[in-house]
Amino acid sequence: MRFFSDNAAPVHPAVMQAMADANHIDTAYDGDQYSARLDAAFSELFGRDAAVLWVATGTSANCLALASILQPHQGVICHREAHIEVDECGAPGFYTAGAKLMLVDGDGAKITPATVTNTLDAIRKDVHQVQAAAVSITNATEYGMVYTPAEVAALGALCRERGLGLHMDGARFANAVAHLGCTPADVTVNAGVDILSFGFVKNGGMGAEALVYFDPALADAARYRRKRAGHLQSKGRFLAVQLLAMLKDDLWLHNARSANTAAMVIAQAAGERLLYPVQANELFLRLTPAEAAALRAQGFDFYDWGVVDENWGAARLVTSWQHTETDVAPLARAIAAL
Amino acid sequence: MRFFSDNAAPVHPAVMQAMADANHIDTAYDGDQYSARLDAAFSELFGRDAAVLWVATGTSANCLALASILQPHQGVICHREAHIEVDECGAPGFYTAGAKLMLVDGDGAKITPATVTNTLDAIRKDVHQVQAAAVSITNATEYGMVYTPAEVAALGALCRERGLGLHMDGARFANAVAHLGCTPADVTVNAGVDILSFGFVKNGGMGAEALVYFDPALADAARYRRKRAGHLQSKGRFLAVQLLAMLKDDLWLHNARSANTAAMVIAQAAGERLLYPVQANELFLRLTPAEAAALRAQGFDFYDWGVVDENWGAARLVTSWQHTETDVAPLARAIAAL
Amino acid sequence: MRFFSDNAAPVHPAVMQAMADANHIDTAYDGDQYSARLDAAFSELFGRDAAVLWVATGTSANCLALASILQPHQGVICHREAHIEVDECGAPGFYTAGAKLMLVDGDGAKITPATVTNTLDAIRKDVHQVQAAAVSITNATEYGMVYTPAEVAALGALCRERGLGLHMDGARFANAVAHLGCTPADVTVNAGVDILSFGFVKNGGMGAEALVYFDPALADAARYRRKRAGHLQSKGRFLAVQLLAMLKDDLWLHNARSANTAAMVIAQAAGERLLYPVQANELFLRLTPAEAAALRAQGFDFYDWGVVDENWGAARLVTSWQHTETDVAPLARAIAAL
Amino acid sequence: MRFFSDNAAPVHPAVMQAMADANHIDTAYDGDQYSARLDAAFSELFGRDAAVLWVATGTSANCLALASILQPHQGVICHREAHIEVDECGAPGFYTAGAKLMLVDGDGAKITPATVTNTLDAIRKDVHQVQAAAVSITNATEYGMVYTPAEVAALGALCRERGLGLHMDGARFANAVAHLGCTPADVTVNAGVDILSFGFVKNGGMGAEALVYFDPALADAARYRRKRAGHLQSKGRFLAVQLLAMLKDDLWLHNARSANTAAMVIAQAAGERLLYPVQANELFLRLTPAEAAALRAQGFDFYDWGVVDENWGAARLVTSWQHTETDVAPLARAIAAL
Repeated sequence: MRFFSDNAAPVHPAVMQAMADANHIDTAYDGDQYSARLDAAFSELFGRDAAVLWVATGTSANCLALASILQPHQGVICHREAHIEVDECGAPGFYTAGAKLMLVDGDGAKITPATVTNTLDAIRKDVHQVQAAAVSITNATEYGMVYTPAEVAALGALCRERGLGLHMDGARFANAVAHLGCTPADVTVNAGVDILSFGFVKNGGMGAEALVYFDPALADAARYRRKRAGHLQSKGRFLAVQLLAMLKDDLWLHNARSANTAAMVIAQAAGERLLYPVQANELFLRLTPAEAAALRAQGFDFYDWGVVDENWGAARLVTSWQHTETDVAPLARAIAAL
Repeated sequence: MRFFSDNAAPVHPAVMQAMADANHIDTAYDGDQYSARLDAAFSELFGRDAAVLWVATGTSANCLALASILQPHQGVICHREAHIEVDECGAPGFYTAGAKLMLVDGDGAKITPATVTNTLDAIRKDVHQVQAAAVSITNATEYGMVYTPAEVAALGALCRERGLGLHMDGARFANAVAHLGCTPADVTVNAGVDILSFGFVKNGGMGAEALVYFDPALADAARYRRKRAGHLQSKGRFLAVQLLAMLKDDLWLHNARSANTAAMVIAQAAGERLLYPVQANELFLRLTPAEAAALRAQGFDFYDWGVVDENWGAARLVTSWQHTETDVAPLARAIAAL
Repeated sequence: MRFFSDNAAPVHPAVMQAMADANHIDTAYDGDQYSARLDAAFSELFGRDAAVLWVATGTSANCLALASILQPHQGVICHREAHIEVDECGAPGFYTAGAKLMLVDGDGAKITPATVTNTLDAIRKDVHQVQAAAVSITNATEYGMVYTPAEVAALGALCRERGLGLHMDGARFANAVAHLGCTPADVTVNAGVDILSFGFVKNGGMGAEALVYFDPALADAARYRRKRAGHLQSKGRFLAVQLLAMLKDDLWLHNARSANTAAMVIAQAAGERLLYPVQANELFLRLTPAEAAALRAQGFDFYDWGVVDENWGAARLVTSWQHTETDVAPLARAIAAL
Repeated sequence: MRFFSDNAAPVHPAVMQAMADANHIDTAYDGDQYSARLDAAFSELFGRDAAVLWVATGTSANCLALASILQPHQGVICHREAHIEVDECGAPGFYTAGAKLMLVDGDGAKITPATVTNTLDAIRKDVHQVQAAAVSITNATEYGMVYTPAEVAALGALCRERGLGLHMDGARFANAVAHLGCTPADVTVNAGVDILSFGFVKNGGMGAEALVYFDPALADAARYRRKRAGHLQSKGRFLAVQLLAMLKDDLWLHNARSANTAAMVIAQAAGERLLYPVQANELFLRLTPAEAAALRAQGFDFYDWGVVDENWGAARLVTSWQHTETDVAPLARAIAAL
């Protein structure tokens, strides 16, 4: 059983069906009847006017967002292990024409008003140093931890005070909301987030993410930038219907709850082995090389995630929407039996 | 009946089926079993070693190709009405960090060794002027005309002589090959083309084009650039299977023949109204405003394409893979009856 | 005697003296006492609040200006033979991260509201095409012709109406003002120009141009961009004093008048040979190859500037600040004697 | 007496004289007689064929160098406090179209083969992570420490082994060579350096640095990039003669020795206060706020350079070419007397 990544999971049948249902002639690009519904659908979900662009990947969503709030000579504060820093092959530099990622530390890939403030205060206010213009956080983080509405609001207040934009990389936003039990707005627009990369591909979609602008004025330039980046697909209706299918009857939330629940079953078996609290659908465990090999011998696949100390390695396991409690029970038992 | 664009057509059922069949867990990005087959499949088609990257759009294929053969301080010679100049919102400038498009004229959006030579010779060979490093041609062109193998080979020879790379935008490459009756290699690699953007989206695909490098060494950097542009989709298998389904039993060629045949039926009815010879699946007709309105009143939709003179406007009609001769017969009759 | 370019002329003694006088320790970059005077000195000259940055070259001045008023996905309308298009090796593409130059025609490298309007109206208002955000004109033009205040004002009004910024490349701005007899403000800020590249290097300076922002708010980002482009020289005081020396007692205007007067002396001798009216310090003459050779044999050097027809070539001659009427009299006689 | 920066020092009289002597008409840009001598002059100094471009600033020299050896999707390893990271407002990102600076630690801003190897080995060899293509070191470093030929050679060997280019930021290269007593080649080309930014502005020049390519083939593209960056000054002869004057009779070396000697005089007085060994012309001292105030009250100016601990602050003092032992004796005495 594969726990490499939710990235590799199948597409939810409802999404596949929606794509099949959209297989008729329609206006190209984003002129179709489905794309036209996105603003309204997401505005309803967030209880606020939002302008929404579909794009195929989280990287393009994140980087279009950053380009919306950064000039090339400016910088964005993010965690040292943020996806935009570590796993996007320099895409932020490409999309922003060379803006700088300003890295801060923090447990579980979370950043705080204090770390942001320290970074801001360490920048000389002269033209020799890049000045920060934005903050980007990932929720749930790259270590599966979740920012609460209050935590985001504290960052949002700081951003307002210091004149910074606030972006949220929500590749696993659904898992964060499922954990929090709040509304999507509580942890975003109500807390000061300007732009959200709302991920669906890891949560049952095929190739469509929603780039959500809570300030619709910012979205106008993004539409040109999306085209200019080659991300305005000509049969865009197939992306739009993925998003609509995921919103319908809160499929996004149900899927995320499944993944989170599966993760929790494993977490309970892992106990002291957990390197981070399990709040969403990622688990980081201590395993000796022998234990890791033993699990793999039983058919469980996962990533090695560096080394904890001379005895222990770290493993990353990710559950996804199609995992049930029953599915993961054998893994939980195997871990408990180590 | 809509003749706006092949862009807006449905996806071929075989492609939809291949996507449904790929809906299982697999390795993410391009590590899956289908992506792994692409090099071999296209190498077989072209009878040469080729390295192939899937991307979602023609714009990204074209611009990744240009970035492979251009430094930012260089230029690419293309037709004044080339898609990369006219319809990509400056994407070449984005992907190449500001390289220059050097525009030449030519009937039917075709360029010739003479026009390329004139452009090259007009560039002062000093650092004040951008020097050309590549030529990009579109086959079939933006006006539905087709470069023959001999025409491409003449450009290819010139490019070799002058040290330029040669890119082919093949958004409608299938229609060109269907018209020519040659092998795909005859009009590309055998004629000196270095990189081909092989289009499938307009020809029955959903969201997958093949970026074909006949010099596989050039593809290595392109893999990083694709990721950096946000075009490395995590469920890339769904793009790979589109391409494989299109290659299977030459579906790409059959589809293109259908579109071309449908265009020819209309062309015969249009006669003297044709502004360009019909060689692929696009038709450009003279119509008076009244005639255009009459056709629309009968349910035929198409783009106005500027003005011919004070009496005549131009209309663009595009057929696609799902058009049969029977389908387009009513339109042919309606045009003949004008 | 060399008439290749005012670029190659000596530096005015007053400028040299000012540089010698500044050769003491002072604060680095633009923190020195001279740089601090620039805003006031130019504000007085223009009768308006202006923010002024020194830079070493016209190319950097022009491109910093364009980057101030263009987003990467936008375009700037300029003449097909504008310096930014023809002679800056793609620098605008570099500084703007790939924005597009939209070329228009016009006699003597001048553009008009009509040509700008035609270009604007030909752009489809969709995301597939680059939208114009600015106009850039050169005064005096690349063919030595001068926009009047009324001509600039007509363009300025159009720019306001269409939401475009207006930049003036004033590499030979002094020559234009000397010809017009107006105030510097009349043909710039009062006529709707937002940013002026005010050239001094061709007019007696060594390596300092003034980038003049009539909207000081735009200058803030430009200060970062200047640093980021490596144009914030650490001994910037030596640039500042060049500008101050040129402004002192209107040296800039006296120098330009000398160059213009010298050009006029030659122009009167050239008569029918002139390809463009001589309004500033550039002359474009018809010469047969034999005539060109004859002039060169007498020690007069100049550029060939293409071909007029099968009999006639074009020659470009440029006078500069150090030319007196007496100096150019031999050339005038030689031309008259052809 | 000002010890803020060697940046703020006067220009050496020999340089001023050379500039005065060049004040005649000559070919523009780098076509003049002086620019034509640079390759030979530096080739002689280094005992190797070198191609040399003048540029006005260290930032442009560094960033043109980086652009020569980095593709936009690649990275350069440098020290966390390298000038290119800390003090160039993101210029490397601008010139390289977004390449990444990969930061390593090390005492005195020095990096070692071990730190470079650790960084390289921590990069996953897949397209999701930026791959390193170059190393950049500063000699003397930002903390006034000097890499020996053996240290550079160790880095050079590693770079060759791992396929990386090696750039040296030599803003204070003269001070490093003066300290080492080796030849300029020993610590650069003979040790594996590909490109050297050879600084003169801090050492008696006005506005000219030498960008030295030990692989002349790399310089060709750099000539276009220099123009494209607006750094090809039209009166380039005034930059060329600065460099030639500095090379004449080893003025560069004499000037650097003066600065180093002056620094050493102060260093001996500072004793235990020194935070780093003094090897070139920069000193970093521990001072209490009261001590710093006391020195300033006596007329000595310098930068605060952060905080050492709750009691001590750090001060940076920089000597320059015009400082004699006599000049700095009062400061030495004042420090000793604290």
